[in-house]
Amino acid sequence: MKWKPNRHSHLTIHEQIVDWMKSRIENGDWSIGTKIPTQRELATQFQVNRSTIQLALDELKADGLIESRVGSGIYVANNSWNVLLNNSQPNWQQHIDGSIHKPNYHTIQLINEYEQLHHIIRLGTGEIAPELLPTKQLEHSLKELALDARSIGYSSPLGNETLRANLCEYLKKHGIQTSSENILIVSGALQALQLIAVGLLEAGSVVFHEQPSYLNSVHPFQSAGMRMISVSKNNHLIQQLKAYKRNRQSLFYTVPTLHNPTGYSLSLKEKEDLFHVCKELQIPIIEDDVYHELLFETTSPAMKSFDKTGQVLYIGSVSKTLSPGLRIGWVVGPSKVIERLADIKMQTDYGSSAISQLIVSHWIATGLYEKHLVELRQQLKWRATFVEHILNQQFKDIATWTKPEGGFYIWLKFHKPIVNKALFLRLLKENVLINPGYIYDSSDLHHIRLSYAYASFEQLKVGLNTLFEMIQHNK
Amino acid sequence: MKWKPNRHSHLTIHEQIVDWMKSRIENGDWSIGTKIPTQRELATQFQVNRSTIQLALDELKADGLIESRVGSGIYVANNSWNVLLNNSQPNWQQHIDGSIHKPNYHTIQLINEYEQLHHIIRLGTGEIAPELLPTKQLEHSLKELALDARSIGYSSPLGNETLRANLCEYLKKHGIQTSSENILIVSGALQALQLIAVGLLEAGSVVFHEQPSYLNSVHPFQSAGMRMISVSKNNHLIQQLKAYKRNRQSLFYTVPTLHNPTGYSLSLKEKEDLFHVCKELQIPIIEDDVYHELLFETTSPAMKSFDKTGQVLYIGSVSKTLSPGLRIGWVVGPSKVIERLADIKMQTDYGSSAISQLIVSHWIATGLYEKHLVELRQQLKWRATFVEHILNQQFKDIATWTKPEGGFYIWLKFHKPIVNKALFLRLLKENVLINPGYIYDSSDLHHIRLSYAYASFEQLKVGLNTLFEMIQHNK
Repeated sequence: MKWKPNRHSHLTIHEQIVDWMKSRIENGDWSIGTKIPTQRELATQFQVNRSTIQLALDELKADGLIESRVGSGIYVANNSWNVLLNNSQPNWQQHIDGSIHKPNYHTIQLINEYEQLHHIIRLGTGEIAPELLPTKQLEHSLKELALDARSIGYSSPLGNETLRANLCEYLKKHGIQTSSENILIVSGALQALQLIAVGLLEAGSVVFHEQPSYLNSVHPFQSAGMRMISVSKNNHLIQQLKAYKRNRQSLFYTVPTLHNPTGYSLSLKEKEDLFHVCKELQIPIIEDDVYHELLFETTSPAMKSFDKTGQVLYIGSVSKTLSPGLRIGWVVGPSKVIERLADIKMQTDYGSSAISQLIVSHWIATGLYEKHLVELRQQLKWRATFVEHILNQQFKDIATWTKPEGGFYIWLKFHKPIVNKALFLRLLKENVLINPGYIYDSSDLHHIRLSYAYASFEQLKVGLNTLFEMIQHNK
Repeated sequence: MKWKPNRHSHLTIHEQIVDWMKSRIENGDWSIGTKIPTQRELATQFQVNRSTIQLALDELKADGLIESRVGSGIYVANNSWNVLLNNSQPNWQQHIDGSIHKPNYHTIQLINEYEQLHHIIRLGTGEIAPELLPTKQLEHSLKELALDARSIGYSSPLGNETLRANLCEYLKKHGIQTSSENILIVSGALQALQLIAVGLLEAGSVVFHEQPSYLNSVHPFQSAGMRMISVSKNNHLIQQLKAYKRNRQSLFYTVPTLHNPTGYSLSLKEKEDLFHVCKELQIPIIEDDVYHELLFETTSPAMKSFDKTGQVLYIGSVSKTLSPGLRIGWVVGPSKVIERLADIKMQTDYGSSAISQLIVSHWIATGLYEKHLVELRQQLKWRATFVEHILNQQFKDIATWTKPEGGFYIWLKFHKPIVNKALFLRLLKENVLINPGYIYDSSDLHHIRLSYAYASFEQLKVGLNTLFEMIQHNK
């Protein structure tokens, strides 16, 4: 026992003694029930006053680490270890519970987790199947990329210049006329929403969205304290918007083409009407257009194409088409807005992966992207037909659906409200993962977002059969 | 004039008339000073009551678009265009002003902007020079990457598994023992701070940091509503922490090795002391260790290596060493914390670039990374020596500095408080960009963060000479 307090420490003498004793207990040198030396002995050893020892012992007693036994002395307490463990670890749970960002719903956390497991049949995944990804072509294009040192440094605030110039050309096919100063490269569409949430809205602003909505399954706006209002598409839209808008700031979030989760598209007339209603009420529009390239037959102008005054923030991405792993998307908007979002992006992650930007730029410029899209649409269409065939055979009496016009999803509606968390969990036990409607509209127990994009044909067959059997079994 | 209101529109008749008239004015069909048809004419044309016309005209008058001239009729107002422009564009500035995230300081926005211009001499840039980046080797390694479809899909919440396993091995060199479940891959260190800010702290929590601090030049915590407290390293640290902590949640942010902006490193003893003080007060530590690999001579254990109880969240990155454009960093911490941060990352951007992760994994696993670091350190050391030589020749009488032990920076201290925004702007006019001390500590007018990492030898010479001349001239 050679330790002594250090008179030049930043800690007071009694604090050092407390620490030393705690470490005795922690190391197990003083195990539970150990009798502690007397105050006199300790005072002598440490060359301090007995009152200092008293102070240290009082603190340890208050912490529950030691206890007096009358007439016998002071002992290491029975639960000292528990106390120490609690004391010495930061209380992370408390940190987490009180913090700002909302956790994902439990169902979504489970989806994120189980999507990692290879044996799971993924009936709801919003991602193209591994075999639909142009993996070999991507690998090949990596070999063709010429890096230059400037392009792999920190990105310019708006993102790679060549990529933005190529996007300007590309976006013309959706009727969008823009210039590269009006484009911000982001790490996927979700990041765009995140930047808009913290960069363009005061807390408590209203975010209008369709019902059901992808926005209910992620929380960029909710975590920033926005008020989410779902509106239904009917003749009273303008009244609904007026009623909630009042003097608050607001935005209208929409996926007008191949909506997530329903797969529906607005007609040209509906797009125009929504645009004009929002314009009249001065409600900026966020047009999330990440599925647009996957329309099977017709193309349809983006709402952004009507926009001459900076009413619409347009979001695109290659995550649903080329590869989600690239993490590349874009926002098109008025330069003032784009500069603001770029400023926040610089404060958030200093830009998106330079290599990913180079790859996307290369794919767009060389036409590889367009060529891949033609093939991908064909593949998705085959898959849609296959799933519809199964649905027609098995599900006709218990559910309804609409023939998909593109994208990934069939919004399968069961006659009865059976799509609850219990069903989700029971299916998970059978290794079948679904995206239940309630993650897009908490009151919805009728729908499943069925994706024909990810699982293999065999898995689609087995998975849908499992789903059917389970529903029959539980009737 | 064939237009008529549509009785089946979602808009009321008078709203449609207002819109139509606005569009006349907007298109220039009704230019300023144009006399508008009489109420009777309009009522006939539109087949509506005169009272409906009256309602529409009143609204346009209230908006300032039209004006009555007594006894003469109604005319398009002089300032109608201004009114229209204001009305038809969403007021984005108001959106921006009221929103949550703080803008970058103006000086930092200028730095971000001017760093893009090729003719600018960058004396403060926190980035390795293009010629120090292993561009050709990176290009070569792209050719060697074998992609598989799973790895370019959406990432697992924690990031690429192989990369995390490789990092476990790699981190042992800093004394860190961890497992891959305790590592989250992020898009650079700044994103890690962002996730921590919204995922682990309640609004109003205290974030302790050194003075000066990199944290003053970015706003992950400030934008989340945290209270920033700078503490000075002295014997009273524990009192300072106790005084501000009270019952609030808190964190201590530190760059203990090759600090940004000063370039200083804590000694082993200082690291231990800081660790134990924070542990005692149950203040979790964020150890930002992104410059550690760039120590010229000795290595030094990370504070994380002392940690047995999950006290320290450790942040690393390849942005300062391999390439900032990859946007790959990592956080090491207790699994509960890592899961929480991963959950928010999934909600923020669905993971980091898969290709970037594959590249970093490849570089670490094959030893390319270590080999590159040896060369990079040597190059940086030469640059440091070169800059010290210039400083010794020119700046000895007006400033002091410490010989750098690694990294990018010399924390150049002028005897007089001359480093203000005017100096920054005057230098910018001469095409010389500096990082003034005040962006790291708003009250500091003595320092410049001088970086020998980015500019070429010739530029360093010219830039420092310009700086010197300007200071002499303005004495």
